[in-house]
Amino acid sequence: MSSSIHFPPCTVVLAYSGGLDTSCILVWLKEEGYDVITYLANIGQVEDFDAAKKKAESLGAKKVFIEDLRAEFVEEFIWPSVQASAIYEDRYLLGTSVARPCIARRQIQIARQEGAQYVSHGATGKGNDQIRFELTCYALYPEVQIIAPWRIPEFYNRFVGRKDLMEYAEKHGIPVPVTPKAPWSMDANLMHISYESGILENPKSHAPADLYLMTKSPEDAPNSPDVLEIEFKKGVPIKVTHVKEGKSKDTPLDIFSYLNEMGGRHGVGRIDIVENRFIGMKSRGIYETPGGTILYHAHLDIETFTMDREVRRIKQGLGVKFAEMLYNGFWYSPECEFVRHCIDKSQESVEGKVQLSVFKGQVYILGRESPKSLYNEELVSMDVQGDYDPCDASGFIKINAVRLREHHRLQGEHHSKH
Amino acid sequence: MSSSIHFPPCTVVLAYSGGLDTSCILVWLKEEGYDVITYLANIGQVEDFDAAKKKAESLGAKKVFIEDLRAEFVEEFIWPSVQASAIYEDRYLLGTSVARPCIARRQIQIARQEGAQYVSHGATGKGNDQIRFELTCYALYPEVQIIAPWRIPEFYNRFVGRKDLMEYAEKHGIPVPVTPKAPWSMDANLMHISYESGILENPKSHAPADLYLMTKSPEDAPNSPDVLEIEFKKGVPIKVTHVKEGKSKDTPLDIFSYLNEMGGRHGVGRIDIVENRFIGMKSRGIYETPGGTILYHAHLDIETFTMDREVRRIKQGLGVKFAEMLYNGFWYSPECEFVRHCIDKSQESVEGKVQLSVFKGQVYILGRESPKSLYNEELVSMDVQGDYDPCDASGFIKINAVRLREHHRLQGEHHSKH
Amino acid sequence: MSSSIHFPPCTVVLAYSGGLDTSCILVWLKEEGYDVITYLANIGQVEDFDAAKKKAESLGAKKVFIEDLRAEFVEEFIWPSVQASAIYEDRYLLGTSVARPCIARRQIQIARQEGAQYVSHGATGKGNDQIRFELTCYALYPEVQIIAPWRIPEFYNRFVGRKDLMEYAEKHGIPVPVTPKAPWSMDANLMHISYESGILENPKSHAPADLYLMTKSPEDAPNSPDVLEIEFKKGVPIKVTHVKEGKSKDTPLDIFSYLNEMGGRHGVGRIDIVENRFIGMKSRGIYETPGGTILYHAHLDIETFTMDREVRRIKQGLGVKFAEMLYNGFWYSPECEFVRHCIDKSQESVEGKVQLSVFKGQVYILGRESPKSLYNEELVSMDVQGDYDPCDASGFIKINAVRLREHHRLQGEHHSKH
Amino acid sequence: MSSSIHFPPCTVVLAYSGGLDTSCILVWLKEEGYDVITYLANIGQVEDFDAAKKKAESLGAKKVFIEDLRAEFVEEFIWPSVQASAIYEDRYLLGTSVARPCIARRQIQIARQEGAQYVSHGATGKGNDQIRFELTCYALYPEVQIIAPWRIPEFYNRFVGRKDLMEYAEKHGIPVPVTPKAPWSMDANLMHISYESGILENPKSHAPADLYLMTKSPEDAPNSPDVLEIEFKKGVPIKVTHVKEGKSKDTPLDIFSYLNEMGGRHGVGRIDIVENRFIGMKSRGIYETPGGTILYHAHLDIETFTMDREVRRIKQGLGVKFAEMLYNGFWYSPECEFVRHCIDKSQESVEGKVQLSVFKGQVYILGRESPKSLYNEELVSMDVQGDYDPCDASGFIKINAVRLREHHRLQGEHHSKH
Repeated sequence: MSSSIHFPPCTVVLAYSGGLDTSCILVWLKEEGYDVITYLANIGQVEDFDAAKKKAESLGAKKVFIEDLRAEFVEEFIWPSVQASAIYEDRYLLGTSVARPCIARRQIQIARQEGAQYVSHGATGKGNDQIRFELTCYALYPEVQIIAPWRIPEFYNRFVGRKDLMEYAEKHGIPVPVTPKAPWSMDANLMHISYESGILENPKSHAPADLYLMTKSPEDAPNSPDVLEIEFKKGVPIKVTHVKEGKSKDTPLDIFSYLNEMGGRHGVGRIDIVENRFIGMKSRGIYETPGGTILYHAHLDIETFTMDREVRRIKQGLGVKFAEMLYNGFWYSPECEFVRHCIDKSQESVEGKVQLSVFKGQVYILGRESPKSLYNEELVSMDVQGDYDPCDASGFIKINAVRLREHHRLQGEHHSKH
Repeated sequence: MSSSIHFPPCTVVLAYSGGLDTSCILVWLKEEGYDVITYLANIGQVEDFDAAKKKAESLGAKKVFIEDLRAEFVEEFIWPSVQASAIYEDRYLLGTSVARPCIARRQIQIARQEGAQYVSHGATGKGNDQIRFELTCYALYPEVQIIAPWRIPEFYNRFVGRKDLMEYAEKHGIPVPVTPKAPWSMDANLMHISYESGILENPKSHAPADLYLMTKSPEDAPNSPDVLEIEFKKGVPIKVTHVKEGKSKDTPLDIFSYLNEMGGRHGVGRIDIVENRFIGMKSRGIYETPGGTILYHAHLDIETFTMDREVRRIKQGLGVKFAEMLYNGFWYSPECEFVRHCIDKSQESVEGKVQLSVFKGQVYILGRESPKSLYNEELVSMDVQGDYDPCDASGFIKINAVRLREHHRLQGEHHSKH
Repeated sequence: MSSSIHFPPCTVVLAYSGGLDTSCILVWLKEEGYDVITYLANIGQVEDFDAAKKKAESLGAKKVFIEDLRAEFVEEFIWPSVQASAIYEDRYLLGTSVARPCIARRQIQIARQEGAQYVSHGATGKGNDQIRFELTCYALYPEVQIIAPWRIPEFYNRFVGRKDLMEYAEKHGIPVPVTPKAPWSMDANLMHISYESGILENPKSHAPADLYLMTKSPEDAPNSPDVLEIEFKKGVPIKVTHVKEGKSKDTPLDIFSYLNEMGGRHGVGRIDIVENRFIGMKSRGIYETPGGTILYHAHLDIETFTMDREVRRIKQGLGVKFAEMLYNGFWYSPECEFVRHCIDKSQESVEGKVQLSVFKGQVYILGRESPKSLYNEELVSMDVQGDYDPCDASGFIKINAVRLREHHRLQGEHHSKH
Repeated sequence: MSSSIHFPPCTVVLAYSGGLDTSCILVWLKEEGYDVITYLANIGQVEDFDAAKKKAESLGAKKVFIEDLRAEFVEEFIWPSVQASAIYEDRYLLGTSVARPCIARRQIQIARQEGAQYVSHGATGKGNDQIRFELTCYALYPEVQIIAPWRIPEFYNRFVGRKDLMEYAEKHGIPVPVTPKAPWSMDANLMHISYESGILENPKSHAPADLYLMTKSPEDAPNSPDVLEIEFKKGVPIKVTHVKEGKSKDTPLDIFSYLNEMGGRHGVGRIDIVENRFIGMKSRGIYETPGGTILYHAHLDIETFTMDREVRRIKQGLGVKFAEMLYNGFWYSPECEFVRHCIDKSQESVEGKVQLSVFKGQVYILGRESPKSLYNEELVSMDVQGDYDPCDASGFIKINAVRLREHHRLQGEHHSKH
């Protein structure tokens, strides 16, 4: 990135949050000679979008885009993750990861439409998000130029601490936040809020009780459960019903929002983990994913109920790979497209209803039913023989033992001495 | 199995529970001309072992073995499963599966020591346990003959329902249970209790509230959490401490029992699932695994904290395979021995302390520390640069994008049209 | 299977080869009271089909089916295997395995069409083929009854050796082979010939030079190569051209037959291996797969040329699984259908031309071209920079090293002491 | 890298080949103010090491190291790769990849011993080797500084083509090669020679016949095979014997060199492939790996003969991962150390003798024997029943069919309509 002023000025589309960092970046980019278009995606975070718009305009943005991506975020990004049972390193439901390609896709669309060759973002140089944003950009717009100020020495050496940003803001008429910053950073969207950095960097110290914004503390949650029924088709929820109240939702955004509400009320989906970033460091993150956690469990249940065992095994492996791709920022990659296709195929018969209760931070599966179930009550019954001859099991076991007996014979009497 | 009487009688070692089924089997085996040695393993189930002993003797057992296997069950079977994060089909912690090779191993030792060529058990012909028992037997004693009455037509056609067993019992002086049988079957050991069959066979119907014996209902559990600290070394717990009370345990059996107590008090570890049996049917099972659930979460946390990302990824795959082997009964197989060795190797540096709370059915990780952590607080810090140059990330991303950009170019302008 | 005579007689469809074994089975089934329909599939083996027909009729078959399955064998079974690069245990191209579901599928169609509830075959009780046949039958016709005489004691105890079959044949007017049987057994189809048993059971002894029927000995093969060009589309060959002679073939059966001819002429595709059967034994097999071997190499080449690296990696794993399923007889299973679908999807861009030579038992890839290649000559060139900044590689390497350096630091100076 | 002259000068250890490129780099590094130590590894390439030494000294190297690494290259790097059946993308035996960590390890040892903080190499900025060298360096010497001139703009912009290097050489008294450079580049070591770049960059054009230096053309190879017997222990060869001549070798270096000689004589191990580089490009490479190809086949044979099927399956997956790590430069990584440990464990019983012939470019396995074989001739025999009851296979098949029949029933009569 050259620091000289361009004529005519190049246009850059900046992913703008309205916060201190990206406001400073906006002004700095102007200083560097760019025409700046700001873009703010509404993916369900709590935000004063109007205020952000005005702020961007007042800071000299040529154009301001505020885009409501919530519905496509749920349908095109969260739903495939639900189908995949996407979970990173056995614990993290990927709420940040899954939002990045959604946000960056629109940013690229705007850049193309506005004839901008540059895009910019305020992600740090140590994190995963820079990668997720930029891989999406390069994949969808190979010729794009990316300006990542937190990786440009003249920027990050100038803004070493928050104090430098504050000074710069004051000097350039950027409104400075009046409330003190929380001693950690957070990222919120429809799927989750993540908390990291600051006092959370010490992996031993417990998270403060007042950290969580999306879920009630389980201790303060209601003393009786809510029972929900979620109906799936092709591996995605098509309806959620509150069993007692009879209330139901049936569009993707409504379903997901309602599950967030229910999960949030009961403190569902809080985790505190150390995870492995793509750049090779371990980091500590705290997440709350109320609706996503409910869906993860419900989907797992209906899937096992309707999917053949061996298909499930293969699909499970694909799901692990999908989660890694997603975490590492490869949503728009040939392999992720391939895997999404395969997983989608595996979900053809994943339909039916799951009843579950949410209570004090936990999701309890209560029962399930499906027109496509592979569960055969008569076959499995201990009381009815069904179309099953128990004698067959003897042969099955003996043939499975052929290999084991051979192995043992070769090992001599090794095992018998145990 | 011939039904004629042998001279001299062959000796059979029967896995005897003291219940109606195996009592009838004991007498039936005698009728068939066998000398019967009964063997009852104490793996932590609630049982009147003395009464079982007397009952077996009164029914004509030549010898009666009551074996306390609890310590070896924890150390040699549960601990490797904890190291492996063994979980079947993403949900089941394998409490029944892991007990079977432990029980059958001793049965084989007794058979060898007593010169018996036969072993027998009361497992049904549709379940997994018959396989787990018998593969262990064949693996450790290739020449053994196995008598599985529930797969022998002359037996199972004679005892079609419980009524037939009751009649047979009365006729042969077998004490008949006075309390009515629960409308489901259960299997208990130190690690868990499982519930299946009977009214649970309908996958839609909810489990009755009074089913659970090992855990309190979360609704009735204490209103404040207990905070525990578990210390690990080589991937297994070596100490658990109640943080407030200062109480601690440090032998495997004590540690696990204490975690059961804590987990049980707070209703931890209840699941209701449909799973895929090795014989190819889906079945519905309800499990409560209080201590195992706590350990699963604590181990996962300390492992991610201390293990390299890529080792973890490979180990995760091995763990999935291990769980399948364990579920299917292949503990004593060359592949399971190999995988256990590999997993054990992976755990060399898995040590440190995890703090967690148990509350209302849930386990919450609170913090962790380790002398072998690969977590580098300075490296990951957002406030300190550490030994890290953010510019490197640009190259990293651009090289990772090479492939994606090529793919996109080949696909033409496909994506840009999104 | 009851040995009593049924009224009215049940109908059985027997997979009939025309050889001594299945001729005896035909007569024996009649003795057992069945109406026997014989079915002989032409899958490319050298056979006098007319003579086999007459023989079956003369032995009392109610109906005789001779079915030419060659085209569907190539298109529906061999082609998907080529797409999958299906190879069992790194060496065996699955020529027998892939024929079995093709043969059994038609047998089931005939059984359904003729209203037969029984099917029968002459496969032995220790092999893989019994499983491959029967799993196909059960999958496509769940209610079918299977008569496998070599697993029925009254049959196999009566026919212990070949002598017993010969005697039975003479007694029942079954024509007895005049030429002595080779001291091994073989199985031939369009894809390969396999040899096993008899003198080959000693894994140390070398195969006799006169064993091979489908390929010339490399020592006797022509002293100059033939150069072929194979064109692929969606991962399957659509044309093969002899570069010098200009001759070409473009239907599946013609292409495959021509590759067999070329490969056979040059002694391509001979292997001598020990493999692991599904029933848990190791067996020694010798195979010659001329056309299949050529295709395996050519497809691998065009695939790597046109498929993204990471897609290829996932597809490679699916291919290994596919090979296992195929070997074990699970062609008609939900998992194999799923995997075939995924692999087929991966082949969408696998098109282009591969030039290769066949010479003295070997296939040499010479060059390749494709309109869908992901190979970018300018990008990779050592002489042109292309759209690539070498500096990026520094960042790429340094970020990849983050993890390694951390690990080393933790290990202390361990490595430096090497 | 600063271009200013340092006082006192920093020391850099340069991996020096004696060729034009690294000679220019040597002089350029001096110009840049470094003290240069050259290091040339003898890993079996044909080279005039004395001349290279003199050349380096004459160009001003402070010290010159010529290190014979051949024995450790075979024992510590090639042998583990043989155990792993390491093959990249199903074809490439990794002859270049496996040499890199061996070379770089010694370079780091020299750097530490000489107190040098810098290392340098002449690898290009588009290739894999830069990564393999540098990851090894960073892993073993985390504080090291790496100078990669082909990634430094002031260097690569100065030396755009070979002509620039020639001019620089002439100007600085660097001896200029008199023979014209081949229109491709090559890399040779004990394991293989690779050819790429230049005229080979066109993936369609055939390799010239005179390219190959390590193997005879199969067309010119002897008209009769050589028969060898290779004896393995713990998965590595401990002896090779020429069966007819009775000649044998029994040290690692001798064994491997002899296999190279035999393979080379018969034209074994030539491949022409397109492969996927770690940096995301496809490249075309031609390789000849005579001894390595023989060992790959022989090891595969003895391994399948002695290793349990399921262990083999897991080990196969680990081998694929190992090959990727090796290719990508992660030999010295926690995951590669872990996988090498696991693979080594799997090889404990991989011992015995394999007889094979090499002829006209091909390796033919002829037979094998082992004291640890899991092959049971009696068990598998078609003529002897052995300890095997064919009836068991019926139960085995029927239980395996349970799942398939259920699936079919659910699919309705779908399959029967085929």
